Amino acid sequence: METVPAMAAPSLDHIRALDAADPLAPARAHFALPPGVIYLDGNSLGALPVGTAARVADTVQREWGSGLIGSWNSADWIGAPQRLGARIAGLIGAAPDEVLVADSTSVNLYKLLAAAIMAQPGRRTVLTEPGNFPTDLYMVQGLAQLVPGLRIRQAEREAIIDAIDDDVAVVMLTQVHYKTGHRLDLATVTAAAHARGALMLWDLSHSAGAIAVDLNTAGGDLAVGCGYKYLNGGPGAPAYLYVAKRLQDRLQTPLAGWMGHARPFDFDDDYAPAAGIARFGCGTPAIVALAALDAGLDTFDGIDRTALYAKGQALADLFINVVEAGDTGIALVTPRDPAQRGSHVSFACDQGFAVVQCLIARGVIGDFRAPNVMRFGFAPLYLTYADVWHAAQALVDVLHTRAWDRPAFKLRGKVT
Amino acid sequence: METVPAMAAPSLDHIRALDAADPLAPARAHFALPPGVIYLDGNSLGALPVGTAARVADTVQREWGSGLIGSWNSADWIGAPQRLGARIAGLIGAAPDEVLVADSTSVNLYKLLAAAIMAQPGRRTVLTEPGNFPTDLYMVQGLAQLVPGLRIRQAEREAIIDAIDDDVAVVMLTQVHYKTGHRLDLATVTAAAHARGALMLWDLSHSAGAIAVDLNTAGGDLAVGCGYKYLNGGPGAPAYLYVAKRLQDRLQTPLAGWMGHARPFDFDDDYAPAAGIARFGCGTPAIVALAALDAGLDTFDGIDRTALYAKGQALADLFINVVEAGDTGIALVTPRDPAQRGSHVSFACDQGFAVVQCLIARGVIGDFRAPNVMRFGFAPLYLTYADVWHAAQALVDVLHTRAWDRPAFKLRGKVT
Repeated sequence: METVPAMAAPSLDHIRALDAADPLAPARAHFALPPGVIYLDGNSLGALPVGTAARVADTVQREWGSGLIGSWNSADWIGAPQRLGARIAGLIGAAPDEVLVADSTSVNLYKLLAAAIMAQPGRRTVLTEPGNFPTDLYMVQGLAQLVPGLRIRQAEREAIIDAIDDDVAVVMLTQVHYKTGHRLDLATVTAAAHARGALMLWDLSHSAGAIAVDLNTAGGDLAVGCGYKYLNGGPGAPAYLYVAKRLQDRLQTPLAGWMGHARPFDFDDDYAPAAGIARFGCGTPAIVALAALDAGLDTFDGIDRTALYAKGQALADLFINVVEAGDTGIALVTPRDPAQRGSHVSFACDQGFAVVQCLIARGVIGDFRAPNVMRFGFAPLYLTYADVWHAAQALVDVLHTRAWDRPAFKLRGKVT
Repeated sequence: METVPAMAAPSLDHIRALDAADPLAPARAHFALPPGVIYLDGNSLGALPVGTAARVADTVQREWGSGLIGSWNSADWIGAPQRLGARIAGLIGAAPDEVLVADSTSVNLYKLLAAAIMAQPGRRTVLTEPGNFPTDLYMVQGLAQLVPGLRIRQAEREAIIDAIDDDVAVVMLTQVHYKTGHRLDLATVTAAAHARGALMLWDLSHSAGAIAVDLNTAGGDLAVGCGYKYLNGGPGAPAYLYVAKRLQDRLQTPLAGWMGHARPFDFDDDYAPAAGIARFGCGTPAIVALAALDAGLDTFDGIDRTALYAKGQALADLFINVVEAGDTGIALVTPRDPAQRGSHVSFACDQGFAVVQCLIARGVIGDFRAPNVMRFGFAPLYLTYADVWHAAQALVDVLHTRAWDRPAFKLRGKVT
């Protein structure tokens, strides 16, 4: 955490010129944002795409209502987990047949962790960092209850590479930290894991769709991620998992459900894993939820990815700049260098909870993470520079006027 | 399997009188069945309720689109798994706080199996039957890959009680067999498991919503079930799990996701299971899919359960009677005694696959399970006696005319 001397904030005229020149400006029209709201929580729950309602209604009414059971084939419901996986592959630097949509991020993490541990009987340690996203830590703790001798070691981010030893089966990290916004370098950490013979498991929940993720270039092994943040798949959308092609037939999940079977419709008594990424499926896919995720992925169609990620960085830069120019004294938690952060920015503030409530009352939606972190996410598909400028000004105003001393606030928790 | 001498089928006039007197007849109007279709596959995928489209659209557009992240609280998304669990409890003879909606049936089965095994370190056997629903068998096989010394034993249904010994941690059975329709007696088998100190885990996927299920009266321990069959929750709907109150705080799932944590929004590094049924949650709940399931459960509102289950039995009786009166020579696989079967009826027929395709071409939708089983499900909420009479006549006609010798059939698989 650091504070810097205040600089002059850009003028609103300058900001409007940025929006006028923004090649991604038309993408905003693909989202149904409520009027009067500046939504800086797309890192927690992405906004609703305008196409989602019709896509879901079609799945419900035509595919399910009219097609009934036959839609497993005629609408290719059965192919949806791989079809959507192939779409997500393009956002994470994977090949189309390396990604599967299934279950929740937590369940997918468990599948890949357990598979990696079973494949390396001589290694018994999972290495992670303290303060990693809680469900990731909990899932490995749960697995350790079942697997005798499994050790969980934690090392701080800065020390993680040095902590990899020959007992480490899996290094499990979140690329962009949910609270601080700090980004780890995929290639560097993956190479360090490989140098000690360990597998690398990335959680991409706070990265994919907002920053460049290039798993295969980084030599990636395993990854999971969330469908409901930057991918705009809706609350609790199905998650995805990535297994590098070279590992797929070496690994096997203990969640050996029929959708991962080589021939699910033979109804054999014995499990035989499918070839390739399909073996990491488990139960029957949630078709209505998959339809919403599919519509979320549509929002990336035709979008220049380089421009997208550059805009996300520019929005975050702008926010930091305007807030710091306001000389409020709150401390930036997130790295200033765009290459070291994701697409959300956090500031530490002892009154953070109340400040966020004040902002929400003004239509600026961010969120708060205990004990003192205010988070603001910059989904580059649907935010304008003017949105971010106004939001930052609102934050400065709330802090200068101590707005939380005035109204009564309705307390509420949030789901990342 | 047995054949019986042909009896006279009831006349269509008699059938129409049954429909006219049916107190459940109005329930059919709550489903959006396509015209010209007699849908006998609700045991595989329930029909679309008329209320689902609007309920899902409201969740998508108002709750997600307008409410955004705030709907976790304002729309009580966070409470949905327990709220829907309490609704399902009424269909399976459980208390409202004994059922949770989460994940898929496969994943829930794994959670409860693993929890039961971890709680009984002196017992290492899971006892089940050959030919149980494949994903149930696969999940225990997957678990056994991870848990050293875990043994899987299979015994035929008739021999299952005698096979329970002091090493059995869990007896895992499906109450109504997906292929044969045979029903096991919940109370008898549960008592036998308890007599040897084992826990009983039931899969209710082919029972709940179609036949009387009374877990607590039967002394139930653990159960799972599917949301997309008789509960009409839509393709791949979230599943449910049941843990008897007395066991909830003794058991802990290795799928220790943040939604099962005592204080998920504290973002602690250490897992601490929630009290009660909530601890069996895992990842973020699939809200759009839960909305569809909620609308599916609405179809049971105000329905007299005794009349519902009696109608299901009567429909199946009628089908058997009309088919057997047709003297086609196909063999009934399902028990003739309604107390020994679920709400679907299977006949063995070497040409079964082709026969089912012929029926589908005539608008009568049943399904086929290898090697030779034709299945016909009787969802009592939306089928009339006339539907069943016509379907049975169609089956007889297809068999007598060997209709499969004429048209070319498009081959297709099905998902149960």
